[in-house]
Amino acid sequence: MSFSPLIRHLIDSLRILPGVGQKTAQRMALHLLERDRSGAVRLAQALTQAMDGVGHCKQCRTLSEDELCHLCLDPRRDDSLLCVVEGPMDVYAVEQTGFRGRYFVLKGHLSPLDGLGPEAIGIPELLTRVDAGSFGEVILATNPTVEGEATAHYIAQLLANKGLVASRIAHGMPLGGELELVDGGTLAHALAGRRPIQL
Amino acid sequence: MSFSPLIRHLIDSLRILPGVGQKTAQRMALHLLERDRSGAVRLAQALTQAMDGVGHCKQCRTLSEDELCHLCLDPRRDDSLLCVVEGPMDVYAVEQTGFRGRYFVLKGHLSPLDGLGPEAIGIPELLTRVDAGSFGEVILATNPTVEGEATAHYIAQLLANKGLVASRIAHGMPLGGELELVDGGTLAHALAGRRPIQL
Repeated sequence: MSFSPLIRHLIDSLRILPGVGQKTAQRMALHLLERDRSGAVRLAQALTQAMDGVGHCKQCRTLSEDELCHLCLDPRRDDSLLCVVEGPMDVYAVEQTGFRGRYFVLKGHLSPLDGLGPEAIGIPELLTRVDAGSFGEVILATNPTVEGEATAHYIAQLLANKGLVASRIAHGMPLGGELELVDGGTLAHALAGRRPIQL
Repeated sequence: MSFSPLIRHLIDSLRILPGVGQKTAQRMALHLLERDRSGAVRLAQALTQAMDGVGHCKQCRTLSEDELCHLCLDPRRDDSLLCVVEGPMDVYAVEQTGFRGRYFVLKGHLSPLDGLGPEAIGIPELLTRVDAGSFGEVILATNPTVEGEATAHYIAQLLANKGLVASRIAHGMPLGGELELVDGGTLAHALAGRRPIQL
């Protein structure tokens, strides 16, 4: 048997959510219809409001309801440090470490096979931002994937041409990890990046 | 740092979905805002349309856009068999087995501790439906949980008072299961419900 048209349309629409497949979407749709219709109405409103009201900060390009986000507007942050990340979610992750410099948010990473070159991910805007600021160091915090590394190296080269220091976040063992479980590449990085123990 | 108000509201609203916690809701919200705004708008519309347009079949009480669902309207189905389930999702599950009788959908199961008695889950309506039909057998397909069993036994008693045959779906080993992995209760049911092999 098939679901009725409105339910089928709702199931299909729920599948755009990351990590939601057919079965999960069915469960969500029937849960909302059977048990939480007012929640579903609030969700529809929240979606509409957020899509209408949330844009991008014109300076750091993270998600923001205002022209400049509160991170760019905060006068207490360190104007000599710029952290470059692949997306807004990464800003929240880095913030939780206690980092208090400035940010620039790319639109993902370089991916020539998908047609995503420097312009597509916002590297010209990054250079404009760097030129307008007075950063002593640019921290390249793209993901430790092949594409993230390539993006970091590409940007580092451009910054070197401007005489600017670019640094890359460290690779190594995650805290709480186990040597026998971690992949060889990570362990090789951890060994190569070893440091003297400070006593 | 905290999310901006509209994003926070969207994250909170997404958490009403079953199986979606704080981290998943964050990922969903930022995914929609960064990568699929048109999908989010369509999802909002689908939610609104489904909540407005989908009600319950007045006969079997499953979800339906019309007064009577297409299962109740279908003249080719077996009017002598009634299958009682806990929710609309169960109707879809039973349909996939090839069952072609009629359905009645309860609102969950009896749960006195939560204040859910016979009226709350629609048992009076079930009895009305049984009286109006000409069923030779009522299959109680509530879940094989403590509450589902109690609900099935409660209904079976009411039906016995009317002189009607009520049956319960079989408990036993799921197909493809392994004896060493299945719980003791299931295995005990499988042993107790053993049948002669037909050669």
